[in-house]
Amino acid sequence: MKSIELKVKVLDISTEFPIVVLHEDIIKKLEIEHLNRVLLKTSSLDKVCIVDSSVSYIEPDVIGVFKNTADELNLKDSEIVEIQTTSLPKSIDYINKKVKNKTLTKEEIKSIVEDTNNNLLSETELSSFITSVYINSLNLEETINLCDAFVNIGDKINFDEPVILDKHSIGGINGRVSMILSPIISSLGYKIPKTASRSITSAAGTADVMEVLAPVTFNISEIKELIKKVHGIVVWEGKFDLCPVDNTFIKIEHALNINPEGIMIASILSKKKSMGVTHLVIDIPVGRQVKVKDKENGERLAKKFVEIGKSLGIKIKALLTDGENPSGDAFGPALEAKEALEILEGKYFSNLAEKACVLSGELLSLVNDYDSKKGYEIAKEQITSGKALEKFKEIIKAQGGNTFKSEDITLGKYKLEITENKEGGKIIDFNVHTLTEVTRIAGAPYDKGAGLKVIVKLGQVVKTGDTLFEVYSDSEDKLSFVKDYLENHSALSYDDVLIEAVE
Amino acid sequence: MKSIELKVKVLDISTEFPIVVLHEDIIKKLEIEHLNRVLLKTSSLDKVCIVDSSVSYIEPDVIGVFKNTADELNLKDSEIVEIQTTSLPKSIDYINKKVKNKTLTKEEIKSIVEDTNNNLLSETELSSFITSVYINSLNLEETINLCDAFVNIGDKINFDEPVILDKHSIGGINGRVSMILSPIISSLGYKIPKTASRSITSAAGTADVMEVLAPVTFNISEIKELIKKVHGIVVWEGKFDLCPVDNTFIKIEHALNINPEGIMIASILSKKKSMGVTHLVIDIPVGRQVKVKDKENGERLAKKFVEIGKSLGIKIKALLTDGENPSGDAFGPALEAKEALEILEGKYFSNLAEKACVLSGELLSLVNDYDSKKGYEIAKEQITSGKALEKFKEIIKAQGGNTFKSEDITLGKYKLEITENKEGGKIIDFNVHTLTEVTRIAGAPYDKGAGLKVIVKLGQVVKTGDTLFEVYSDSEDKLSFVKDYLENHSALSYDDVLIEAVE
Repeated sequence: MKSIELKVKVLDISTEFPIVVLHEDIIKKLEIEHLNRVLLKTSSLDKVCIVDSSVSYIEPDVIGVFKNTADELNLKDSEIVEIQTTSLPKSIDYINKKVKNKTLTKEEIKSIVEDTNNNLLSETELSSFITSVYINSLNLEETINLCDAFVNIGDKINFDEPVILDKHSIGGINGRVSMILSPIISSLGYKIPKTASRSITSAAGTADVMEVLAPVTFNISEIKELIKKVHGIVVWEGKFDLCPVDNTFIKIEHALNINPEGIMIASILSKKKSMGVTHLVIDIPVGRQVKVKDKENGERLAKKFVEIGKSLGIKIKALLTDGENPSGDAFGPALEAKEALEILEGKYFSNLAEKACVLSGELLSLVNDYDSKKGYEIAKEQITSGKALEKFKEIIKAQGGNTFKSEDITLGKYKLEITENKEGGKIIDFNVHTLTEVTRIAGAPYDKGAGLKVIVKLGQVVKTGDTLFEVYSDSEDKLSFVKDYLENHSALSYDDVLIEAVE
Repeated sequence: MKSIELKVKVLDISTEFPIVVLHEDIIKKLEIEHLNRVLLKTSSLDKVCIVDSSVSYIEPDVIGVFKNTADELNLKDSEIVEIQTTSLPKSIDYINKKVKNKTLTKEEIKSIVEDTNNNLLSETELSSFITSVYINSLNLEETINLCDAFVNIGDKINFDEPVILDKHSIGGINGRVSMILSPIISSLGYKIPKTASRSITSAAGTADVMEVLAPVTFNISEIKELIKKVHGIVVWEGKFDLCPVDNTFIKIEHALNINPEGIMIASILSKKKSMGVTHLVIDIPVGRQVKVKDKENGERLAKKFVEIGKSLGIKIKALLTDGENPSGDAFGPALEAKEALEILEGKYFSNLAEKACVLSGELLSLVNDYDSKKGYEIAKEQITSGKALEKFKEIIKAQGGNTFKSEDITLGKYKLEITENKEGGKIIDFNVHTLTEVTRIAGAPYDKGAGLKVIVKLGQVVKTGDTLFEVYSDSEDKLSFVKDYLENHSALSYDDVLIEAVE
């Protein structure tokens, strides 16, 4: 252990990590390296900080302290502090163990999660962890232990209810099943505290869509009140910290464009556990354009969910569903909200309605002594009778909203009709990426009214001039960008026998 | 592509990476994420910068620019700049490809190396790359391509010589073979531009040891002069940039405590290639306490070196050597320099001298039509005849040193004799980690005179009170720390039949 006294310089920059910057001579003198740790000692508090040697511009007698850490320790410029070399968090050894493809114990996983939560691990170390979990994967027991560790550090919502139902979808295309399913289930008297995310790269997240009708941001005690009052809700999960390391992990997963299965499962199920969910349907869309590409992987994943559910005391049914085709015809918050309401209003019964009823039926059969076919009938009846719609209006009102009818939803001011400008053909596929991009270019998910409505159906034969889509936006400029984009990107695939004729 | 105008705030902090900090509202508005890239446009220059969303304390209309980037772009506080969203470097896709255990093409590897060299990749991304290379490894062709990419971006030293010899050791314990071998080889008229590293965690690096006798820091043209004049040198490799991404990779490798084989091989061989080496001996110590733990791994590694050498046009002989026992009796710069000189002075012929002659013999046989046994005889004769010593004095003088005799080397002012304080026994093992730590506690490698001299031999029977080691230091305090440390750490293992008697 070596120590030295240095003069504080508060750096006008903040991170979640406790980072300090030392002159290279001091680093040499202390015999430390980039990302080693030092103990920063003040009169009141000692704190382990991460040495960032890639960050420079510091005098030899100075320690640069990021503002967040300076504030936490109440450090002022020019104050003298002692720093001591100190050992690395043990969790770094455990990350190394996973890199070396060894199985981690419950305690080791707990240590990694806790140190991540306390910002003791740098992004470099976490990146290695996430990469190694992706490549070497977690076995069933490790995944359960990760889930437990997540539950331990997170917020919990205790509804004081013996039975709590829920549904979770993994990476579908579009369509707000939750906004139909939640009213169906709660109209039957069950509690279903549906939490939902916002979009990151999709056209809209369920929270973005629900927000068209009502506020979605509530704290834990408000959510408890809501469930007590109306049984079902659709709220944004971002306000409470069921799995506080999620954001840290997700940030790195996005940067690396990987989503390790073990972390994903643990994250989903820990949140359900923390909310006291007892019966859960997991919807796993399978399709070439969604997260799970084939049945084999879907089945493997489904079995894991069920197995881990057992160990957590959650009765799970995992369902492989059609992820080849969009669920419903709408992309974008307002259009998707309108579609969900229209289904509840009984205006039509589309594939999205069908999916909501199938999933509701499965969920009902989990908690009742009838089968899922009977459950489906019961669910559908809740729509037909208008009871689900009545319940949804109660939910919207309870959440503080005042949009109760599909016709009251405001779409983007400007509309662009996209027509077939080539010879057309029989539609065999939608290019989901293109549809999503068009919706985002039009302004979604931030502009709620921006969206894309699919006019054609799969299998339909279209010819030149037929309307394919309607695109809504509040900006004519954005619609002209959409036009440009569609010049170079195809949104549909046709069943063309002839691909090219060369003469 | 989205763009926005923001006011520059130069942050008083620097990194090698072009990092900018944006307010979360701007990040949302631009639809970007942590570690996405933006194009920072100034009147003169556009630069791709990395968005660090984990770093905050920025007003919505401001872009925080790290000082290094602000200086490069000549940006001043309050200046208005435009930023545009821009795509990620393609190399991030290639890193993702390696994470997914796919083979990288020559072009893809080149792209990763070049982007690393241009600081276009964040540490998070590089950490994932290094972890994935460690786990999924590089095949022979990928390693060759990595080596080529390293050579392409690095400095080159052209000696205008058809034959250049060299030797490289991988992770031994101690003992400066190079300081004996380099004079032997060059005294026979061969050119051997030995570059060496400084210690990071060991008791001393060869550059630290050579520096006891002469300066070791030279630029490329000085090295060319030296080789022309005296044929052999022992210099620090840190002054020139044969493999400029090495430091970036090594920093992350140390933080993660992994050393992916493919990167290690490519780094070593690219530097040799860049120096025009034609004949090379690779020394691979094998032992429980060194990098390569067993013969099997040693052989696999050896074959890789030879194979890749062929593709680079370097004739390589890779040798598995005894890494179980220390080479020589000395730990620490001055003691190790003294030992090398004493061997050249003919004072004794230890296992270190033997190793130097064996490696010299192998190297000589590579470039001559005699075998390594004959080479060994020739090498040994250069020591016996005093020719290697004369050559070494020439080298020391040419490098600007003035310490030519072993007795002129200054050791630490204070000496501590470590004696056997238990019952002793037959010595069967040295604990290298303890010996290294003691040497470092005494002040090495920064205090040149600090060191540890092993007095006992392997197999020797010692009893209570016998002297085991001498420790030198310039500080009595440090010696008392050494004493404390040795109370709790054993430096020797004994052949004890009886481990414990319980009554």
